This record gives sequence, structure tokens and C-alpha cells, in this order.
Amino acid sequence: MDMAFLGELLTNVADRGRALIGFERFLGNRSRPIDKLCEDLLSGRGEASGMALAQAVLEAFQRLDKPGRLAFFTMLRERFGPDHERLDAAIEAYRAKPYPATVAALHQASEPRRQELFRRLNLAPEGTHVLVRMREALFEAIAAEPELKGIDEDFRHLFGSWFNRGFLVLRRIDWRTPANVLEKIIRYEAVHEIQGWDDLRRRLEPADRRCFAFFHPQLVDDPLIFVEVALTGDIPRSIGEVLEPEREVLPAQQATTAVFYSISNCQEGLRGISFGNFLIKQVAEDLKRELPGLDTFVTLSPVPGFARWLAGVAEEPGDLVLTNEERAELARPAGETISLDEATRARRDKLLGQMMAQYMLRARTASGRVIDPVARFHLGNGARLERINVGGNLSARGLRESHGVMVNYRYDLDDIETNHEAFATRNTVVASSSVRKLLRPATS
Amino acid sequence: MDMAFLGELLTNVADRGRALIGFERFLGNRSRPIDKLCEDLLSGRGEASGMALAQAVLEAFQRLDKPGRLAFFTMLRERFGPDHERLDAAIEAYRAKPYPATVAALHQASEPRRQELFRRLNLAPEGTHVLVRMREALFEAIAAEPELKGIDEDFRHLFGSWFNRGFLVLRRIDWRTPANVLEKIIRYEAVHEIQGWDDLRRRLEPADRRCFAFFHPQLVDDPLIFVEVALTGDIPRSIGEVLEPEREVLPAQQATTAVFYSISNCQEGLRGISFGNFLIKQVAEDLKRELPGLDTFVTLSPVPGFARWLAGVAEEPGDLVLTNEERAELARPAGETISLDEATRARRDKLLGQMMAQYMLRARTASGRVIDPVARFHLGNGARLERINVGGNLSARGLRESHGVMVNYRYDLDDIETNHEAFATRNTVVASSSVRKLLRPATS
Amino acid sequence: MDMAFLGELLTNVADRGRALIGFERFLGNRSRPIDKLCEDLLSGRGEASGMALAQAVLEAFQRLDKPGRLAFFTMLRERFGPDHERLDAAIEAYRAKPYPATVAALHQASEPRRQELFRRLNLAPEGTHVLVRMREALFEAIAAEPELKGIDEDFRHLFGSWFNRGFLVLRRIDWRTPANVLEKIIRYEAVHEIQGWDDLRRRLEPADRRCFAFFHPQLVDDPLIFVEVALTGDIPRSIGEVLEPEREVLPAQQATTAVFYSISNCQEGLRGISFGNFLIKQVAEDLKRELPGLDTFVTLSPVPGFARWLAGVAEEPGDLVLTNEERAELARPAGETISLDEATRARRDKLLGQMMAQYMLRARTASGRVIDPVARFHLGNGARLERINVGGNLSARGLRESHGVMVNYRYDLDDIETNHEAFATRNTVVASSSVRKLLRPATS
Amino acid sequence: MDMAFLGELLTNVADRGRALIGFERFLGNRSRPIDKLCEDLLSGRGEASGMALAQAVLEAFQRLDKPGRLAFFTMLRERFGPDHERLDAAIEAYRAKPYPATVAALHQASEPRRQELFRRLNLAPEGTHVLVRMREALFEAIAAEPELKGIDEDFRHLFGSWFNRGFLVLRRIDWRTPANVLEKIIRYEAVHEIQGWDDLRRRLEPADRRCFAFFHPQLVDDPLIFVEVALTGDIPRSIGEVLEPEREVLPAQQATTAVFYSISNCQEGLRGISFGNFLIKQVAEDLKRELPGLDTFVTLSPVPGFARWLAGVAEEPGDLVLTNEERAELARPAGETISLDEATRARRDKLLGQMMAQYMLRARTASGRVIDPVARFHLGNGARLERINVGGNLSARGLRESHGVMVNYRYDLDDIETNHEAFATRNTVVASSSVRKLLRPATS
Repeated sequence: MDMAFLGELLTNVADRGRALIGFERFLGNRSRPIDKLCEDLLSGRGEASGMALAQAVLEAFQRLDKPGRLAFFTMLRERFGPDHERLDAAIEAYRAKPYPATVAALHQASEPRRQELFRRLNLAPEGTHVLVRMREALFEAIAAEPELKGIDEDFRHLFGSWFNRGFLVLRRIDWRTPANVLEKIIRYEAVHEIQGWDDLRRRLEPADRRCFAFFHPQLVDDPLIFVEVALTGDIPRSIGEVLEPEREVLPAQQATTAVFYSISNCQEGLRGISFGNFLIKQVAEDLKRELPGLDTFVTLSPVPGFARWLAGVAEEPGDLVLTNEERAELARPAGETISLDEATRARRDKLLGQMMAQYMLRARTASGRVIDPVARFHLGNGARLERINVGGNLSARGLRESHGVMVNYRYDLDDIETNHEAFATRNTVVASSSVRKLLRPATS
Repeated sequence: MDMAFLGELLTNVADRGRALIGFERFLGNRSRPIDKLCEDLLSGRGEASGMALAQAVLEAFQRLDKPGRLAFFTMLRERFGPDHERLDAAIEAYRAKPYPATVAALHQASEPRRQELFRRLNLAPEGTHVLVRMREALFEAIAAEPELKGIDEDFRHLFGSWFNRGFLVLRRIDWRTPANVLEKIIRYEAVHEIQGWDDLRRRLEPADRRCFAFFHPQLVDDPLIFVEVALTGDIPRSIGEVLEPEREVLPAQQATTAVFYSISNCQEGLRGISFGNFLIKQVAEDLKRELPGLDTFVTLSPVPGFARWLAGVAEEPGDLVLTNEERAELARPAGETISLDEATRARRDKLLGQMMAQYMLRARTASGRVIDPVARFHLGNGARLERINVGGNLSARGLRESHGVMVNYRYDLDDIETNHEAFATRNTVVASSSVRKLLRPATS
Repeated sequence: MDMAFLGELLTNVADRGRALIGFERFLGNRSRPIDKLCEDLLSGRGEASGMALAQAVLEAFQRLDKPGRLAFFTMLRERFGPDHERLDAAIEAYRAKPYPATVAALHQASEPRRQELFRRLNLAPEGTHVLVRMREALFEAIAAEPELKGIDEDFRHLFGSWFNRGFLVLRRIDWRTPANVLEKIIRYEAVHEIQGWDDLRRRLEPADRRCFAFFHPQLVDDPLIFVEVALTGDIPRSIGEVLEPEREVLPAQQATTAVFYSISNCQEGLRGISFGNFLIKQVAEDLKRELPGLDTFVTLSPVPGFARWLAGVAEEPGDLVLTNEERAELARPAGETISLDEATRARRDKLLGQMMAQYMLRARTASGRVIDPVARFHLGNGARLERINVGGNLSARGLRESHGVMVNYRYDLDDIETNHEAFATRNTVVASSSVRKLLRPATS
Repeated sequence: MDMAFLGELLTNVADRGRALIGFERFLGNRSRPIDKLCEDLLSGRGEASGMALAQAVLEAFQRLDKPGRLAFFTMLRERFGPDHERLDAAIEAYRAKPYPATVAALHQASEPRRQELFRRLNLAPEGTHVLVRMREALFEAIAAEPELKGIDEDFRHLFGSWFNRGFLVLRRIDWRTPANVLEKIIRYEAVHEIQGWDDLRRRLEPADRRCFAFFHPQLVDDPLIFVEVALTGDIPRSIGEVLEPEREVLPAQQATTAVFYSISNCQEGLRGISFGNFLIKQVAEDLKRELPGLDTFVTLSPVPGFARWLAGVAEEPGDLVLTNEERAELARPAGETISLDEATRARRDKLLGQMMAQYMLRARTASGRVIDPVARFHLGNGARLERINVGGNLSARGLRESHGVMVNYRYDLDDIETNHEAFATRNTVVASSSVRKLLRPATS
């Protein structure tokens, strides 16, 4: 593929906006109400002056305040749903002759008019960007008015198609990346906050650090998801040792282990359109190619649901036999744990490790799923639970969410498929023997 | 928007293929039958090893011979349609409660499983490319087996979404364009054949020539549609004067007129996904910005349906009063017309002009549409019929299709909207007074 | 020119380094002393393995400490000068026959061997970069050992050729520029210090701010010189109003004035190779093209030599008639000037303005030159002295260097040539009438 | 290094031309004679309006006819040489005190003013390009007027500095290269003519073909030198098997041998500025990195001086004992050799091989150099003579220049340094034993 040509090709995207100069004349009155503009866009007029109409709608939308947006979405719900008459007729036709042609007609008739509206709104320059923002606004509106939830189906369907993983582009983020992209990395980092440009630089520039993001050609300077990687000599036990500013930098060629220590989704408006799965595997492959000495790919991950679950267990232990001391230990306020004597701490740490193993391997939701969302993500990707690190994250948040415990998930490319199948079909959590050994014998 | 960054970003697309090296291990046996691979891809396995599975399917497809492809499409029709049980249930639910949620469920249930299959096939490197080729193969299969037509609905829906006009990129094609793109321009030119590289150069390099194409980021070195433009001092009457190798080159700044003398669709597999509409308007805007001296934007267009219509008219003149001499003249073989005396030629030319005006302005299909497909395209875009040029194209094809007559359609950016509305809603062909004057009085 | 192709072309520069892998085998022992390596490079060996030898020399040089560098330059002086025997012979030949051929031979014979050595050192990857750093180190060495000054002649000659202004590239610096370039802008800003990334952003991102730099293809992410520009509605009187964070941003299209408020040379190792001249004129042209509403191009400049000159004048007033009060006023410590009453301040300000006019228009060095180096730069470029702004820079440095006074130089593209000639040939400072009026009548 | 940034950086080069719009006002009268313009450019005016003056000179030069160019160069010789008074004074000063400072002054004083003139001419947009063309014109003028030869010294010096091998960029040429570069490859191929675009494609697109060129950032779409490479399974014996259109294409990964079968210099105006040396070694390194299976790097080279030498030998055999039959055989007209019987042909072939070994290994010019220029190039680069291929090139030119014999030179990266030294210092031609065995015993 000719990349210089592609690069130049894309530089024309920026020019698309200018084309609107000429199209403005079609628009006539920009004060035309937004619902009329939407109807225009779906009508024949959209054929001739779609780009200008789409821009007019999106600009009008962006000027709306919160009640205005609620009204806008309500209008979309009420007036841009499917055509019920046509739908009823299509059902009749299908019932009479349940053939492919009538199914197709039924499928079309049941498509809300919103979908075509959204597709046409994308004609505007930066259209995709604004539509992603529109979905963000929709989430806010749904919180106020749950009936609007139906509209989100249309966004999901559309974005699922546009943001097809085949269209995503993996790119390394480093200290030579444009500043306007880097500031988004600072802003979007959701796991271990980046404290300004110097901190960012420490995560990008040293020879033993990497960062990769997925981009979409239509959201060019706005990453979709990114992962921060540390190259190390062994699997780290705490986030502190990973982020330590004074640590000795390891020459990349000497690294054996790639640690995915932070994964952040960037676009709230793309919630539910999953990319992370692909990101980790592709980054692992790329790193392996660049640095053949790498043989271990692990995460260092938070366990955000652990403390809440444990609080419940302490009260109502279920099939766990907890002594009264253990219950008291688990109920100890975080503030007190700092000054424990060594023996107490050792007991406490052992107990936390056992409870974490229980949480991961046995505890399930009412519907039978693994409780922890981060665990579900990595296990669903085919990783296995490698190690439990008590004291891995002693920040306020780490203590609050998981009593300071972190875990490593391991991506072994040879086992991903099998692990994934075990988890997907039998809900089995594949774990290392060291983790499994932590389990207390089940009470019979 | 940061274009250097985007350019570099896109260079990573090429690397995606390499990632498969590692994924091959998931695939196990590449000799697994294609239908099983398709099922795998739609199943849970697709989550973990989708990219490798998608590539396996596409490679297997590309190895199929014609009967194999027919069998493949038949399988898609029979086994990857909608789930009828689920669909019937969704209909019942909708009937019971015709609410947005049940409509959405109905819409989903009526979607053939093929759609998700196609979306996942796009995970493969070059996936979009192969899917476009797959639709080409489908057209061939439909010719043999019309029942397969339903599958095309799924392609249309998907490509309509992926090739949303908001994603297309306009790019100038010139003599500095990579050779592998230029050879496609030579190959795809469908109106006035390009006779090799020297001829191509004559259409790209002189200061008074331009060529523009729409590209899609996923089909990077393969244009979707392109238009060739001549910059001139007035509206040309014949393709000969436009393509004349020995003509004097006009400095671009002195040009007043941009002539769109050839528009070619490139991708048979994107048939029915229309881009031409946007192409002409955007090129007109861009040229106007570069060369403010331009005030006239016209085509020099073939009229491919004229001769056939005229043959019918000559036999059965309808409301046209044709004398016997006129009928004889119109029936004259092309070979003979070269050596006509001046008076006969003048009479013949006048008659052809009148007939062309009739063909354009009055003649209609049984369903009431304008007959000529090129006319429908430009008039539907909001152009008006500007001039009829008898003797505009004396090539064998020009004589055969339209007795050598060509026409100019004019794009006046101020009138496009009105013209389009007139044509779209009332089927009115907007034409210049000079064209209208050519009409013979209708027989009453 | 084909820029996509060029861009891709340049991406190959980075690969040059890798080629050395193979060449290392030529090198044998990297512990070979640096003087021997230099001789090797100039000998026949340099033909076969120049790239590896050049890299070996540059690496060895970069490992030297300060005494080592002094020894290195001393060696260059003693052993890599011209060949005196050959030179004497060339002089004889020229004396015998003073023809072009003997002049050419004389020119060659008088060229120190260092020049060819430097040219060959440039074969190493990043060679140009290291050579620029080597000249920086030479300046340090010259301070200790003035005899080394002759070596700088060779650098000047070579860099004058390599950094020919025809090879420089003007590029806009903005918020989308890579962070590794931006951090150099922060570091190199020499006039009004940039206080970190937020301050930088305030100078780059608002619609009424611009920054441009000259780059050289061989020093790709290291600017040579840059200028910061404010777009305003009129000529500013103080740096405070330009840098005010809370100021209202002006839409660029409404600006009439481009203010060059900071110009910084970046490469100490290119001292004496002048680019600034071209930078301002080219930026002015580019801005005028982008924003035709601009009609005024001025600087807001420091006057770094004013306070020192004034201190001399206060003691020894020369042809200036200063009253005792005036002398006392000029001697007032900066700390006291803050709390002056209005009348005193007005008197003081008037006096400072008069003195500045005197400094600029009449005061000269012993050799008859304008005293202020910044003034010489702009006047030599063809600017005129437009306005004196008392109180233009009340920072500690501004008060210390120039009692807080700043000036505007104006670049009127129609007058540059004439102004330059007046200054270059007759040493005449072209100034506006408002400046000239400030002059006190000369004492006769 | 940040390549995206560099790419974008370079796109500004193209804009430099536009800057002249504003500078034109400085120029006043473009009809000013070219010698006056040159003087202006060297004077103070050049400081202020150098870019416009430089362009004016270069435009005036390009309008000159042949006598005009002769007059121009004569003027450069007569009026832009060194300042003899200053030179004489510098000689005196040096004689009095032969110190570095006086040597430096002497060096400067002996520099013709032309050098600075050329440096300033480079300020014009496309200046480097035109200066290269100017040197081409100079060669023509020197043919008519040898006294102009001195001017070429200045070009050589300048171009030697500007086209420093450290500034050159290696780039692969393939079928995705812009057409305007490819047409230059067609035009410049000097060894085995390219017969149009189809032939070009056969040399670029197959998996077992490569082409690489050196570019300079200032001559962006104009290569300096290029080499065509065939990837093969063994060392080819004839150009026919390399260029055979119907040959089976070898997957690149299976190749063991890279054959440099054509090297062409492109810029007559850069004659004597050598790049080929570096090109072959760098291409060899790059190929080895891409295709680790390659272990043999050879040329397939013409021997352009063989037939002429052999004609001399046949007449005056020197230390070769040639029988009368052998002399007659060598004198046989090319036309006759086609229809020889097998035994005669075998005898003839053996004789030609022996003579070629003699030509390469023993024959020398009067001054003791190897006779063949192509041999001097490769042996000087450190290659060894690997094999003599009788019947390697049976084209008319091949028969005429070398009786159809070709040779392979082998680049073994481990031996390059030693081979080069042997050739450079002792004039020894390193050859394989198979070649050495072809030598007839010397007559004693």
C-alpha cells in the first residue's frame, strides 16, 4: 500500500470544510427550526444540499442547552422512528410469504428514520465527531428520560458499523506525537492519573516505556483507547515500582516482560463499542516483533469491585468460614492499616490474598457472572489470572476500591483461544496454580 | 486537523497484516470448510481470533472457482439469513406492544446473519477490498441464480454505511500521482478511452487540464470515481477539440470555463452507492477557489440512449410529425453520412438537433422518467441542459449511440437547488432557451 | 514539486543509521585513538569505510571531557591545517603565472585539511547535528585558548555553505507540533521566557497568535530560529498587553497588525550564520497572503544596550545638555520608580523618551556604528524605527537593561530596500517623525 | 527522528516560490543586464533583496541562447575571479608571518567571487536545480572555449559541499513511485535501455526486482543515481536471462543473490561528484536486512573498453603470444560470429575469456591504471572480479564494445576494505581463482 499517497490523500479531508462556503447559498435561512432541517435532510433536498443541511443541523444542535437537547431527542423519538403503517404492511407481506424478499422489506420497514438521518448528518465536516458527542449528550438525556433509550440503539448500530475494528489504526504515542494529541492522553488517562507534562514525558520517553492508541480516520487527533506499557525484567507487584520516577531505565533489548499497566477508553460517546480486546493483542504482537526478547505479556490491573464485595462477605460470609478476628481485620479502617505491626500485617495480607482468590475464582453475581468488570474484560480476552499482589496500590483509591490489592493477568498468545473458550462457554476462570493455591478449601 | 499526524497514523494500516503472523496459531487447520469458518467467525471464537478467521474465509473465497462461488452464495442465502423463529416471536411481541423497544427488537431479528458476518470479515487485512470484489462476484452469481438477489441487500446496506459520503476524500490526480493509481485511471476510464501513458499524460499534465477522484481510506490506491476536466475559454462543442493533442494550452488563470468531459465509476462492486453527485459539486467549488476567473461549469456529455430511441421513433413517430424524407435521413447508415453534400448535412444536422431536444425534453419512459441515464444523473444533480452539439463525437461509438450528438449540462451553483427540486418533484427538465427553441411544435 | 513523495523520501534518512551495522566490521578497533581515526578518514580508507570511521570519530569526540576537547581542537589546529610545502609551491606557481589555474591551485593549497575532515565527518548519521555541537564546544575552548580561533574559520565556511538560506524551510509552529519540537521552543526562547506548557499554549493556540521557525532538513526536529507573532488591532506599547493571559482574543481576520514580539536564535553552534533577516520578511509575506487585512508589520523589541549607555551619559553627558535634576532622575534606582507621583513620573517618562531617541539616532560607537545590537539587526534588515514606548517592559530585566523602555521597528515592504541602503551605506537610521521629534536640539 | 513532522516541514519548500510575489517590488527593472544583476547580488543589495535578485539572474540565464551563455561564462571568468590586489597582499602577509590567520586570509583572498555568487544564486526558488543545469551548460561552453574550465572548479567545490554524501537519501523506486519520477528513470537509464512503461514495470513490480536511487532534498523529484537489482538463485551469466520477460518470478524470500545489473548517473551537471560507491554498499546492506537469505552481492557489468583494447592488441600483441589464427579470429566481424560451428565457437569463446582476463588483470594504461572505467569504479569500491561471461550481452552495443563479454564483480562486505586497499595503494586487481586461471602464462 502506498502510504505517502495515502497521507497526502488524507490531507484533503481538512479541505472539505471549505467546500461549504459555496453551499451556504443553498441553505437560505439558518434560523429554520432544527426539526424542519432534519426533515429537509431526509427529503429530496438532502440530495442536493445535504452537506450544508447536515452542518446546519449539527451547528443548531451544538447551540442547544440541556432542556433543548432533551427536546431534540424527544423529537427524534417521536417523529423519526419507523413508519408504523409501512411496518404493519411489511409484517402482513411477510406472514403471507415468508421469503427473503419480504424479510428484507420487513427489516427496512422496521428501521427508524433516525438511522438514515444520522448517516446524512455525517456529511457535515467533522460530522462523525459531533455525532459521537451527540451520543454523549443522549446518555445525559436518558438519565432524565429513560424512554429515550431506544434512540441509543440507532447510535450503537451505526457506530458498530462505522467503527468496525477493521477500520481502526494502531499508532504509537511518544514524545514526538503532536501536543494536541498528548494533552488528550493526559486528560483521558482514567486509571493512574497523569500529573502534567513532566509526568507524561516519564511515561513516554524512557527506553523502557511504550504507549499505543487506536485511532479512527474520522477522529484523527482524538484517540479511541490507549494502553501504557512498561518493559521490565519481571512481573511487577505494585504500581509504585512501575511509576517510580527514580527507577533505573532498562534498555529495551534487555526486557523480557511487557506490562500493560493502564488501559483507558477515551470516547464516552463510543461506550459499548469494544476495542480493548484487539488493542492488547495487537500491541503484544507488535512489541514481540520489535523486541524478540519479550516472552511475557501481563497486565498490572486494579480490582475495582473487590472492597465492596468483601464488605458484603464480612457481613454475610456465605460458604466462607471467616473467624471473628478475620471479620474484624477486614473491617479495619484503611487509615489504621498503615501502622500495623509486622505479624498482624502478614496475617492481614495472607487473608486479603485468600479473599481475592475467592472473589476471582468462586464468587459470582446473581446471574452467575464473574463480579469484577476488569476481570471480565481480560478473562474474556483469553488472559489468565496470574498473580495476586497484596499492597500493589496503596493510593487512596487503591485502598478504597480493593484494600490495595492488584492482580496480574497474563496474555500467553498460545493459550488465548483456549482460555477464552473456557471462560465464554463454561464461565471458567483460568488461573495460575499459585493463585489457585490461595483458595481456602470450600466449606462442604 | 493535524495532517502530518494523520498521514503517519495511516501508515500503520499497512502493518496490520503482519499482526496475523501471531494469530495463525489460533486457526488450526486452514483446510476447515468455508461454511464452518463462517460459523466460527459468528460464534464466540470470532471474539478471540476474528482477524485470523476472517482472513481464512476471505482467502478460501478467493480460491473458489465459479461454481464454488455460486455454492458459497447459496450457502449464505440458505444458512445465514434471519432466524425465523426469533423473527416470528419479535413480530408477536410487536403486535402485543407496538413500542420502540419491540420495533428495535423486530428490526434486529429481521437482520440476516450475513450482515454481522460481513462486518466481521472486514477484520481481515484488505478486508474491505475483498468484500467489494465479493459483491462483484455476487452480481455474476445473481445472473445465473436470481434468488441470490437478497444477499445484495445486505451488501448495499453495509456499503451504504461504510462508504458514507462523509468518509470520502477528494484528491487531485496529476502526473505526480503514483503509477499504480494512474494505471487504474487508464483502466477505469469508461467514456473516452485512454490510449496508454502518453495519452494519460496529455490529460493530466498540461496547465489547462485537471483530474479529481474520490477515495476511501480503506481502498487507498483504488479510486471510487473520477472526473476529467478541461479548462477552456468557452463551452466546447465536440470532444475532438477537447482532446486535440496539438491544441494550444491555455494558462489556467485565463480560463473562464471548466468542462467536465468524462466521469467514470471505478468499482463495479460499489454499484448503486452513488458518489458522482458530490464529486462534481465539490470539484466545482475547489476549482472556483483555486481559479476565481472561472464562471462557467459545464459537462460535455454523451447521450447513450438517443440512437436507440430515435430508431424507435423513426418507425413509430408518435406525436412527432416526421416526413418520409426525414425518416429516411434518420435511417441512413453511419458509413454514408461522411460524404454528404453540404446542404444535406445542414438539413440532417438540424433534424438531429430537433430530435435530441425532443428526446430530452418530451420523450419519457413508460413509467414517465427521462429516458437517458446520463441525463437523469446530471439533471438529478441540479444541472440544466445547456446546449445540443450535433457532430460532437464522431467516433464509431459516438455515431452508434447518438448519431454523433453530444450535449452540455451546466452546473450553476446558484440554481442547483431549484433545478434539482423541479426535476425531483415535477420531473421537469430545466433547459436553456436555445435548447427549448429546437423543439418542434407539438402536434395537437 | 511532489511533497508526498518528498515526505516519504525523507523518512529514509532515519534508516541511514542502521546501515552502520554492516560497516562496523571495517572499523576493527574502536579504541583506536581519535587522531588516527581522523587520519584514516582523510586517507584512502575513508573512501571505503567513511561512514563507520566518521561515526567512530564523532562518538569518540562526544565522550571527551573538557581537557580532552581542548586537546582535540589543538590537534586539529596543529595537524590538520594546510600543507605548507604545497602552499609555498602554489604561491611560487602563481607568482610565475598569475592565471586562473594557479589561483585555483593556490586556493586549494591554502585550504586547511580540517575542511575536508569536517565534510567527511558529516557522513555519520546525525553528523550535521554533532558538528554543530562541536562548534559550540569550540567556542568554549577558544575562550581558554584563543589560538584555536582559526578552526572556527573552517566551521563558518562550511556551515555558511551547508546552511545556505536557500536550503532553509519555514514552518509554522502550533499546538499540533510534536512535543519534542515544542519543548525546544520553551527552552530556546531568549527574550520573554516561556513559563511551561500552559504559557506555551497561550502563545500558540489562540486565533491571534502565530509562531514560525526556520528548519534545515538535516536538523529536522531542532529549529534554527523562530519568531513569535501577535495579531492585533494596533501597534502595542508594552509586552504586558501582548502577553496578557486574560486579554480578549481577536479573530485573525480582523487583525490589521502583525507584531513580531520575540525572535530567538536556537543554535549557538550556528552563531554568525544569519537567518533572522529572511525569517521576518518571509513570515510577513506569508501572513499577508493568509490574512490580506494585515497592513502593518512591526516588532515590539527590547533595547538591551540603553541603560548602560545612559549610565555613561549621566556621568559624562557629551553633547547632551542634562540638568542636574535630570541626571539625578536617571540615576534613581529602579526600586524607587514604582512609587513616583504623577508629575514626576511624567517628567521622567519624557526624559527617558528623549534619551532613547538620542541613543538610537545620534549615539554611536567609537567605530561609528549604532550601539544597540537589536537596533542594528532590524535597521540592517530595512526596518525603520517607528515608536518609543516608555514603560513597555517593567520586568526586572526590562528595567535593568533599558529602564523599561521598548521600541517598535516597522517593516514596510515597500521601503525595506531603501531603508536598508540608507543604513548600510550611509549609516542613517530611518525613523518616524514622532521619534525624530523627541530629539533634543543638539548643543552647538 | 520525527518523520511525519519532517514530511510536513518539507511541504513548505514548495511555498517558498510564492514569497517572491512580495519581493518583486524590490527588483525594479527586470531588464537590467545580467552582469549588473550579478554585481547587485554580491553587493549590499543582495542582503535585502537577494531572493528576488537571484531569481532574476537565473531567469535571465535561462533565456540565454548558446552564444549568450558563452558570453555569460566569459563574463564570470573575467569579472568574478579573485581580487588580485587583495590576493597579492595576502601572499605578502603570509610570507611575513606564516600563521593560521594569514593562511586563512590567503585562502579567502584566493576564492573567486563566483563562489559567493553561486551561493547567493541558490536563494532563488529551484535555485539548486538551475545551478546544476548551469554547470551542464558550462560543459558545453568549455568545449568551445577551454579557458572557461576554471569556472568549473568553483562548481565542483560548491557541489562537493552541498551534495555531501551525508545529505543524500536512499529511496526505493517501485511501481507506486510518482509517475514524474518514473519517467526520469526511463530517460536516465544508460546501460540497458528501458523500452517504455511496460518494460519499466517489468523491472519494478515483480517480487524479484528492486530499484533504488539516491535523492537530494533540494532536487526532490530528480534522482541523482539509481541502481536496478535482480534477486536470483545464482550469479547470472547474461543480461538476457536477467531481463527475460517470460522468466519465472522468484519469491524474494528464496533469493540468495542480489545482482546489480544497471547503474546510471542521472545528473550530467553533477559529473565528478561521486555517489555510486555509497549507493551499492547501502543497497546491499538494506537488502540483507530485508532478506536475510541473501548471501551473494554481485554486479553484471559491461566492459566498455575491451573491444578497443583488443583491436590494439591484435595489431600489436605486446607480451601476449597470439597465433595468426587467433588474430584472425579476433578480427572476425561481429556479423559473422552468429553462424559459427560449435568447435570454432568454443575456441573463440575460450580465447575471448583469456583475453578478457588479460585485459582486466595485466593490461594497464600508460600511467599504469586499469584501463576499463567500469572496472576502476567497482574495484575502487572494494569489489573483486568474480567471473567472466563470454556471450553475456549479444546486443549490437554489447558486441561492439566487448565482443559480447560481460563480467561479474562481487561485493563481499567482509573483504571490501582489504580489496579497496589493495587496489588503491598497490593497484592490485583482486580476482577469483577461476578468473586468474584464465590468464595465459606471461611470455618471459
